[in-house]
Amino acid sequence: MTCYRGFLLCSCRCVAGGRAAATARRCPLGGVPAESAGPRLGGVGGGGRRHLGHGRHSQACELEGGGGGGCPAGGFRPARVVVVAKTTRYEFEQQRYRYAELSEEDLKQLLALKGSSYNGLLERHHIHTKNVEHILDSLRNEGIEVRLVKRREYDEETVRWADAVIAAGGDGTMLLAASKVLDRFKPVIGVNTDPERSEGHLCLPVRYTHSFPEALQKLYRGEFRWLWRQRIRLYLEGTGINPIPVDLHEQQLSLDQHSKALNSTRIHDQRSEVSGPQLLPVRALNEVFIGESLSSRVNYKSCKPSFTFSIHRASYYEISVDDGPWEKQKSSGLNLCTGTGSKAWSYNINRVATQAVEDVLKIAKQQANLDLPLNKELVEKVTNKYNESLLYNPEEPKMLFSIREPIANRIFSSSRQRCFSSKVCVRSRCWDACMVIDGGTSFEFNDGAIASIMINRDDALRTVLLEQ
Amino acid sequence: MTCYRGFLLCSCRCVAGGRAAATARRCPLGGVPAESAGPRLGGVGGGGRRHLGHGRHSQACELEGGGGGGCPAGGFRPARVVVVAKTTRYEFEQQRYRYAELSEEDLKQLLALKGSSYNGLLERHHIHTKNVEHILDSLRNEGIEVRLVKRREYDEETVRWADAVIAAGGDGTMLLAASKVLDRFKPVIGVNTDPERSEGHLCLPVRYTHSFPEALQKLYRGEFRWLWRQRIRLYLEGTGINPIPVDLHEQQLSLDQHSKALNSTRIHDQRSEVSGPQLLPVRALNEVFIGESLSSRVNYKSCKPSFTFSIHRASYYEISVDDGPWEKQKSSGLNLCTGTGSKAWSYNINRVATQAVEDVLKIAKQQANLDLPLNKELVEKVTNKYNESLLYNPEEPKMLFSIREPIANRIFSSSRQRCFSSKVCVRSRCWDACMVIDGGTSFEFNDGAIASIMINRDDALRTVLLEQ
Repeated sequence: MTCYRGFLLCSCRCVAGGRAAATARRCPLGGVPAESAGPRLGGVGGGGRRHLGHGRHSQACELEGGGGGGCPAGGFRPARVVVVAKTTRYEFEQQRYRYAELSEEDLKQLLALKGSSYNGLLERHHIHTKNVEHILDSLRNEGIEVRLVKRREYDEETVRWADAVIAAGGDGTMLLAASKVLDRFKPVIGVNTDPERSEGHLCLPVRYTHSFPEALQKLYRGEFRWLWRQRIRLYLEGTGINPIPVDLHEQQLSLDQHSKALNSTRIHDQRSEVSGPQLLPVRALNEVFIGESLSSRVNYKSCKPSFTFSIHRASYYEISVDDGPWEKQKSSGLNLCTGTGSKAWSYNINRVATQAVEDVLKIAKQQANLDLPLNKELVEKVTNKYNESLLYNPEEPKMLFSIREPIANRIFSSSRQRCFSSKVCVRSRCWDACMVIDGGTSFEFNDGAIASIMINRDDALRTVLLEQ
Repeated sequence: MTCYRGFLLCSCRCVAGGRAAATARRCPLGGVPAESAGPRLGGVGGGGRRHLGHGRHSQACELEGGGGGGCPAGGFRPARVVVVAKTTRYEFEQQRYRYAELSEEDLKQLLALKGSSYNGLLERHHIHTKNVEHILDSLRNEGIEVRLVKRREYDEETVRWADAVIAAGGDGTMLLAASKVLDRFKPVIGVNTDPERSEGHLCLPVRYTHSFPEALQKLYRGEFRWLWRQRIRLYLEGTGINPIPVDLHEQQLSLDQHSKALNSTRIHDQRSEVSGPQLLPVRALNEVFIGESLSSRVNYKSCKPSFTFSIHRASYYEISVDDGPWEKQKSSGLNLCTGTGSKAWSYNINRVATQAVEDVLKIAKQQANLDLPLNKELVEKVTNKYNESLLYNPEEPKMLFSIREPIANRIFSSSRQRCFSSKVCVRSRCWDACMVIDGGTSFEFNDGAIASIMINRDDALRTVLLEQ
């Protein structure tokens, strides 16, 4: 009983009175059987709302995630859209000095001192802002109700309110937008608002940045398909946070830490509260990275360059892949990515440089006495083929786990540096480590904590693939 | 006018009345011309001290660092030694919960909850402590005045007091010991106090851990040579610290930050205090690493796993190698190491896994139609030869700079991923980055700051190479 069949057969327009409506199938987009659907052209909310968004009336739709490939979707006509806009570098710098009440001229000079270009930052800011306005205008012209938010105002309530989420920025803004969408029903669409500065892998093709109405029309006509980007979920168990972190290298505990330390009841609570596995309220669109954080405290007492004694360590942990035997490891960290994330940090961890390939081939030529024409063309071809093999389809429900800078010495052994898996369990032996989800959310992950990491198709992110 | 010649000709015993003393050469070890040297067998300090340590009377000795090669040193007989001992994991855990006034039994249970073995930690602690006692006994038996310190009590005054520094722990303890020795006169000697758990690359061979008197005798008899480990110095200039760091993703500034932010006079100071290049009071024995730190704030409000929205970013910077043209780059960070450090983090950044070598050779075989017997033996041989080429002599006055996980895309180009250099200048374009020296000391290194990084032979660390 799939919606894809519904899409195919009825084109799922579900417009009241439309021919397709006669088929009266349960349709995720229609939400309500067509005969009872009233026309909806945006407008205010309130009672009696029926609309053409998907899932609002919670049809328990059996969506087949991960592999709808090639199958066109029916039209999609959201009535309410939240636009999440990125914060530009210019805005960041303004906010940074906000309390000092700097004039624009002050800010300009300060940035110049640091070697930053005020004019450059302002230019990028204007380009972004203009492109956001274009999106907002396009939506309002269609009678769509729009909310514009930045990071701070973007929350679960807003996501619930909206029929769809548009991320106006770059890939980072897409990650932010996805971070509040924890199921696979609400579409998230990215628009690259500064194509000259931003890769926009997760965004619509660049042409739609300046002609967003065209993208909207294609959505309405169903000239797109849903791209189900698989995501990673995490279960965490163990003793969780150490409520009394101590930096051994500080001269003294800070007052705050000291008072917590004296609160010994928390220690007792901890001992009776060894938690069972908790499903964390996040889904990784790109990757989960586990490693020691750089602990540092900064000394503000002088304007001189400050320095403090801090720790940067390798990560110790034990790992079990696909319910295999536990293995002790030491490295710079672990990276578990999705197909989407295989183009991101994972790619940078695993890719080889032409320099390395050339050196490997030189040594092999010598060692095996090869008749090998070591020219630049061959080296580049081999390098590119190797690096391409690191990427895979975002819709594939598998993780690629990579050990970053494995440390192999007398004490620790290392096995395969990289491989696909369905499930990975990691037990922390670290002093001050964390799990970082999509470079944006971090969880403490210290000695004794155990994470179970896997892909579940229920968590896929519903995104849009527009035909060119 | 080299001491090495002095060492060769007079065996540099400089014992009062000894035949060698007649040569009355300026000798770094003797410190005082032999005829006026009185016997010194340890004992209390005070006036009229003359002794057999080196450099105490500041003979302006032209020590040729970096390349004393096979040349034996004269005997070395320190009168005062500071022993810097590491803090064991067991001690760390004790201190961590100190304020909660846990009993040993409490601590044991708490560790068990976290999956740590209390007994295991205690065992390593005892092994280390026993080996430290052995060192102390050996020194005192020779009438040497000894001070035992841990990290917190180890300071410049203690270094000035001592004739030599012994690091009792692992490589980390050697780095700690070296961090307070900023010239090339004071010998630093490492003893590995837990050879089963610690690599000890920078320490004496493991056999001396249990027979330290043997090492002392060799020192006295000159049956060793000085190993001059080159180190890296850093100059920093620019606008330095941003006195008002703002975490854009926090709901509000902390009270502390808020009050600093209101202090606008600091902003004005900053503008008038663009600092010229300052030589930082550190010398990197292993490496300088530059990169974005993981900014995170931890929520202590509940015992549940805490998470906060934080940033982990790639590092943006501009780099000029050996006074070459400036180049924009984006990566996970930069690593500049010494010969000593080429075995450390640099090695882990640059080494290839057999898996990668095998894949490269497979692809090359296919692309170039090679007659290549791809067996495990060849792959391992090529892998080992490649990885060995990453190491070089600690006495060579050159840096190896590596770009960690270079990011090459439409926006940023990347050049050579790794190369030797004499001097590297880096200009930060980062939001929240730092320079980390030997994994232990960090400096803020944000947008606008410029670091000049180089090796100067004056900064070499004087260590001991004992013949086996």
